[in-house]
Amino acid sequence: MKILKNVVIVNPGEKPYKGFVTIEKDKFISVSPGDPKSQGIPEEDGCGGWLLPGLVNTHGHAGSSILRGAGDDMALDTWLKTVMWPNESKFTEETVKAATNLAMAEMIKSGTTTFLDMYHLFVDQFAERIADTGLKAVLGRGMIAFGTEEEKQSRLEASKHLIQQFHGSADGRLHIAVTPHAPYTCPPEFMLKAVELALDKNVLFHTHCAETKKEVEEHYSTYGIHPVDHLHKLGAYSGKSLLAHAVHVTEAHIDLFAAHKVSISHNPMSNLKLGSGIAPVAEMIKRKVNVSIGTDSTASNNSLDMVEEMRMAALLPKGRQEDPTVTNADQSFSAATVGGARALHLNKTGMLKPGWFADMILIDPKGLHLQPQSLEKIKSHILYAMKSSDIQSVWIHGKQLLKNRELTTLDEEKIIYEANIQAQKLR
Amino acid sequence: MKILKNVVIVNPGEKPYKGFVTIEKDKFISVSPGDPKSQGIPEEDGCGGWLLPGLVNTHGHAGSSILRGAGDDMALDTWLKTVMWPNESKFTEETVKAATNLAMAEMIKSGTTTFLDMYHLFVDQFAERIADTGLKAVLGRGMIAFGTEEEKQSRLEASKHLIQQFHGSADGRLHIAVTPHAPYTCPPEFMLKAVELALDKNVLFHTHCAETKKEVEEHYSTYGIHPVDHLHKLGAYSGKSLLAHAVHVTEAHIDLFAAHKVSISHNPMSNLKLGSGIAPVAEMIKRKVNVSIGTDSTASNNSLDMVEEMRMAALLPKGRQEDPTVTNADQSFSAATVGGARALHLNKTGMLKPGWFADMILIDPKGLHLQPQSLEKIKSHILYAMKSSDIQSVWIHGKQLLKNRELTTLDEEKIIYEANIQAQKLR
Repeated sequence: MKILKNVVIVNPGEKPYKGFVTIEKDKFISVSPGDPKSQGIPEEDGCGGWLLPGLVNTHGHAGSSILRGAGDDMALDTWLKTVMWPNESKFTEETVKAATNLAMAEMIKSGTTTFLDMYHLFVDQFAERIADTGLKAVLGRGMIAFGTEEEKQSRLEASKHLIQQFHGSADGRLHIAVTPHAPYTCPPEFMLKAVELALDKNVLFHTHCAETKKEVEEHYSTYGIHPVDHLHKLGAYSGKSLLAHAVHVTEAHIDLFAAHKVSISHNPMSNLKLGSGIAPVAEMIKRKVNVSIGTDSTASNNSLDMVEEMRMAALLPKGRQEDPTVTNADQSFSAATVGGARALHLNKTGMLKPGWFADMILIDPKGLHLQPQSLEKIKSHILYAMKSSDIQSVWIHGKQLLKNRELTTLDEEKIIYEANIQAQKLR
Repeated sequence: MKILKNVVIVNPGEKPYKGFVTIEKDKFISVSPGDPKSQGIPEEDGCGGWLLPGLVNTHGHAGSSILRGAGDDMALDTWLKTVMWPNESKFTEETVKAATNLAMAEMIKSGTTTFLDMYHLFVDQFAERIADTGLKAVLGRGMIAFGTEEEKQSRLEASKHLIQQFHGSADGRLHIAVTPHAPYTCPPEFMLKAVELALDKNVLFHTHCAETKKEVEEHYSTYGIHPVDHLHKLGAYSGKSLLAHAVHVTEAHIDLFAAHKVSISHNPMSNLKLGSGIAPVAEMIKRKVNVSIGTDSTASNNSLDMVEEMRMAALLPKGRQEDPTVTNADQSFSAATVGGARALHLNKTGMLKPGWFADMILIDPKGLHLQPQSLEKIKSHILYAMKSSDIQSVWIHGKQLLKNRELTTLDEEKIIYEANIQAQKLR
């Protein structure tokens, strides 16, 4: 058992207050105002720092982190065809290892404690490294339905194998999702098999959907139906379902998401950078859709910084609708924490609460950009001024993974070295 | 004379290269590839850091920095009337001193070397502190044409006095602009006097314009003309002219800006946060308007971080126009440096060039979020991944104001203390 005292407890939906937390193994025993009574339990002093639930990144592709800056300022399909796919075709196990290590280290240092990842290469090996590193994750084998029937079947088998081997492993930190890439890369007959697999195994179904206008138009011209409706028809919303992007959707689609409890992974920076557009997330939140936040990969963002991402999730709808009242700081903070956990169907994750998993980040409040300060202003500062470099310490399931900005389970220098070596091999 | 060697020279419009700079007094003597020949000149090792021109923030109100987080998620006019003006009415000289010190410290730490500031309280005192601190600035006395004829006249007199006392002072680091607040707070007869003063003294004319749709509509209903056209009619574009925001403008206005060399201060984060909208800056750049970047005040942003601001300037037009090719990293970098200096009509500022002022920032390139690295990727990383916390050192006119993230001319702890004391007094 241990205590972290002298912190400001900051939960979504609650007013911040000064207090302390008691942790036993992987969970909070208590989250309380005031100071602990000394009872011989080891105490750490949070020095007045702000204690937040860890950030939850609900969409990414860690394996392509090594392509940061490899191609900017081009449209999604050009970027996929001229940058992503040609480079990824050269990826070896070592490339993906270097890329995923880089991503994990960057995520921990920027306050992400849980993430969803969809990738098609060496997912087993990544799962094992996540287990060792201490992060919490939902992993999926990205599936594109190109190639022979055998190749397609082997991808579904790989997903099945992942579920059998890893779902619920690493003391409950590791979960598996079924993740077909997108309606435009997975024809209906394949998508249906993916849907059935997710339902059969009772795991999360996750795919890209309605990211660009072009995708929607082409889907209409091929199938005569919007991809959101097509997925509905294929039964994708009957189980646990999370769609990435959902930029080009109608009010009827938003109602459909709400009715079927489909969560959305909103990726504001990637959607801007690829020129996909701005998703109508304020409308989604208004209509009770569970909106979560994701970074997408560093190849289209170009960082994994959830602090900037939640800021943009709060700011963009205000600009898009020319109405600053359509979002607020607490909504975005909620989407980046407990909303993310809900989207991933992870229990007891995303808030500082007794009995919940001790996933938390400690913010150093001394930055000039966080002044002046008062309890009432903390949420505003977190959303509209905080930087990920203010994150001092990170714990996941009670274990400290970042301590005074030093990684405890990963070797930062080695990771940087390997990332550069592997990137050079791609040239 | 001194040398900074072992750096990557990163200028707008040029490919980055490894090299060094030689500085004599306030200017660059040389900016060269390779290594310096040892000649007994003191050499500092940049350790492979990226050397950039200092960032130029072309619109802000440092005096209200103390209102960071005082009111969020509300419309511009509600925010002005219920948060800004009532609080500002309580401001004393000590409040504004604490606020402007906080702003200066925050700007230096986030890489701003030159800034424009429009404020209505204690501008003389701010000018003196800027001179001492070492920053480069264009200051204006914010003027609202409320009150008696005498009060109005006194504001113009204050501007005139500022010009006489400070324009060109502090070894050329301090400049004065004529800054009426906005067409909606300054009726045409007053605006005309401001225009004439700027023309008479040959100084920059700067005002807010076309920030919100409501402002434009009300201007039409009061005067039957768009505020951009109204300013044109009043002669505001015949001298040196810079408009803040210009969110709600037409193609004809953009052509007008280009024809009259009117620069724009684009404030993407503030425009989002106040729900003003997204300015058509890609169209402006395409039509050869000089676009610069500003943060606006921390009361509507809520930070003075030009690194995030230039990122948003690059990303927002891509999302707004659903076309990732409409902006690129170099354009936004240029707008945040030499474009800003051009907007402020400051000579020899905004690039690393022999004979130009030695305003520069050194980036520590070791962050995980800046990997993998190569010369070709540096500009992408600067725009799409860098954080202001990567800024290691800052020099203005050859003098170092930030050294390994420590301020050399300001006392950070004292500034934080004073900012909090003064903020508490406002309650």
